Amino acid sequence: MNENSISTELPAQNLRNIKLVLEYDGTDFVGSQLQKNGRTVQGEIEFALGRLTGLPAGERCKVNFAGRTDTGVHASGQVANFRTSSKHSLETFRRGLNALLPEDIAILSAAEVDFDFHARFSAKERHYRYQVLNRASRSPLLRRSAYSVATKLDVAAMQLAAGMLLGQQDFASFAGAGWGVPSSGSTESEEETPGTIRQMLKAEWLTDPESPLLVLELAANAFLPHMVRNIVGTLLQVGKGERTPGDFAKILAARDRRLAGPTAPACGLSLVGVKY
Amino acid sequence: MNENSISTELPAQNLRNIKLVLEYDGTDFVGSQLQKNGRTVQGEIEFALGRLTGLPAGERCKVNFAGRTDTGVHASGQVANFRTSSKHSLETFRRGLNALLPEDIAILSAAEVDFDFHARFSAKERHYRYQVLNRASRSPLLRRSAYSVATKLDVAAMQLAAGMLLGQQDFASFAGAGWGVPSSGSTESEEETPGTIRQMLKAEWLTDPESPLLVLELAANAFLPHMVRNIVGTLLQVGKGERTPGDFAKILAARDRRLAGPTAPACGLSLVGVKY
Repeated sequence: MNENSISTELPAQNLRNIKLVLEYDGTDFVGSQLQKNGRTVQGEIEFALGRLTGLPAGERCKVNFAGRTDTGVHASGQVANFRTSSKHSLETFRRGLNALLPEDIAILSAAEVDFDFHARFSAKERHYRYQVLNRASRSPLLRRSAYSVATKLDVAAMQLAAGMLLGQQDFASFAGAGWGVPSSGSTESEEETPGTIRQMLKAEWLTDPESPLLVLELAANAFLPHMVRNIVGTLLQVGKGERTPGDFAKILAARDRRLAGPTAPACGLSLVGVKY
Repeated sequence: MNENSISTELPAQNLRNIKLVLEYDGTDFVGSQLQKNGRTVQGEIEFALGRLTGLPAGERCKVNFAGRTDTGVHASGQVANFRTSSKHSLETFRRGLNALLPEDIAILSAAEVDFDFHARFSAKERHYRYQVLNRASRSPLLRRSAYSVATKLDVAAMQLAAGMLLGQQDFASFAGAGWGVPSSGSTESEEETPGTIRQMLKAEWLTDPESPLLVLELAANAFLPHMVRNIVGTLLQVGKGERTPGDFAKILAARDRRLAGPTAPACGLSLVGVKY
C-alpha cells in the first residue's frame, strides 16, 4: 500500500487503479488541485466520483493529477488516476462522470492500469501549449484561450530563443517564486523531480502565415511551477525587441529568476498531453 | 439620400461612410440585429458608437450588418457600415470602439468607403463555417464553438452530399420556417435577395485525421434564414446513416422544408467573411 490508496482497510488486490484523460476549461477554476477555498478540477472530479461509486458523504476518493495547473490554465490532455473498489465498467466511469461533471470538465477516456501507476510520479513527459494572438485587436472568440498581444512580434527572434531551451538544463531562471522552499500548510510534496534541472524535448513556435495565432509547443520530462508562463513572458520580450536572443541565452545561463521577464497570463496555457 | 442615412438634415457630402469588420462570441447575445428585448451585437455597437461620436442620448447611429446572425451564432468576419459626420480617424474608431465594447465583441478594422456602400445590399458573397466535434466525449474547451456529436459520422457520405449543394439552386428545402412570409412588426425588409434561389460557391467538409473536429465551409452569394443550420442538420443525418447521399439530393430537389433534417444548434456556426 502506498500513500495514495484511498483506504488502508482494503487490501490492494481488491482495488482497481483507473487512469483518466481529461479536458477542462480552466477559466472558472482556482486551479487543478484541491484547495480549502475555491472551485477546483480535483474537487469537482472527486465529488462526481464519490456520487458515481456511492461513497458515503464525507469520504473521499483521492485523485492524482499528472500536472498541477494554476488558476485559469486549461487542459486538453490532463491525466489523472484513482484507486477504487467499484465494479463499474470503464465506459460507465467515462459516461457517468461526464453526466455528473459540470460543462467545463470532461473525461475523454478511462482505462484500467497497473496498481502502481501514478499519474504524477509515473509521468515521463509533459506537453504544454501556449497560444498568443498577435494582432491589433483583441479576439472575443479566443479570449479564454489565447493571450492577446497587439505589438507586432518578431517571430524569428522568438523561435531562435525558444531553441535555446532544448536539452537538459537548469531552468532556475524560469522557476516560480518560492520554488524549493517547503510551503507551509502543504501536506504532500509537490516535487516529482527535485531541483531545477529539466530535460526540454520540444520548444517550438508553430505559426501559419494565414493566421495571427502563434503557438508555443513545449515538452519536457517535468516543468517547474510557472515555468512555461515565465518562459513565454521572456520570449515575448524578445519578440517585442526589448531583449535579444543573446539576452535570452544569458538569462537562462544565469539561473536567476530576477532576470527573466514577467509571468505570461494563464489563459493562453494548456496542458495538452502526458506520456508514460 | 437613402433609407440608411442617419440624419435627413445633413447633406450626404458631410457624412462619411465607415465599414467595420467585427468578431463576436454570439453565446450571450439574442442575435446580431437590434430587438426590443435582449442583448444584441447591433445594440452594443450602436451604443458604443453613440458614446464615441458624442451623439445626444436617445439619438441613434444606425449600423447595417452584412449578415443577420441568430442567437448564439458567432462571427469572426462580420461586416457592418454606418454613416457619420464624426471627424475621428479610422484608428480612433477601431481602438475607441474596442475600449467601449464588451469583451465578447471586437472591431477588427475600420475603413472609409464610398457613400453608397451598404454592408448588406452591396455584399456579393458570404462565407459561413460550421464546426462539429465528432468524438465520444463533449469538449469543455470547444463547448461554445462546436456542436458535439458522439455518434461516429461517415464523413465521406457527408462530403458527397455537401458537394450536391454547389451551383445555382433552389434551397427552399433548407429555408427557415416563415421565409417569404412578411413578418409582422418588422419595419424593414430582410431580403437582400428575394426568393429561395441561391448560388452556392463552396460546400466542403475540412477534416484532419489527427483531429475529431469536422468543419463545414459554405460560401454563397446569400443565404436564407437558418439555411446553414438546416443543411448541417440534414448532412448529419447522412453522416449517421439515417439518410443516404441520394436522399439528400432528393430533399434538395423537392424544395420542401418538411423533408429536411432538424436545425443544427447555433453554437457551431460562425460568419467568417463577406466579399464585396
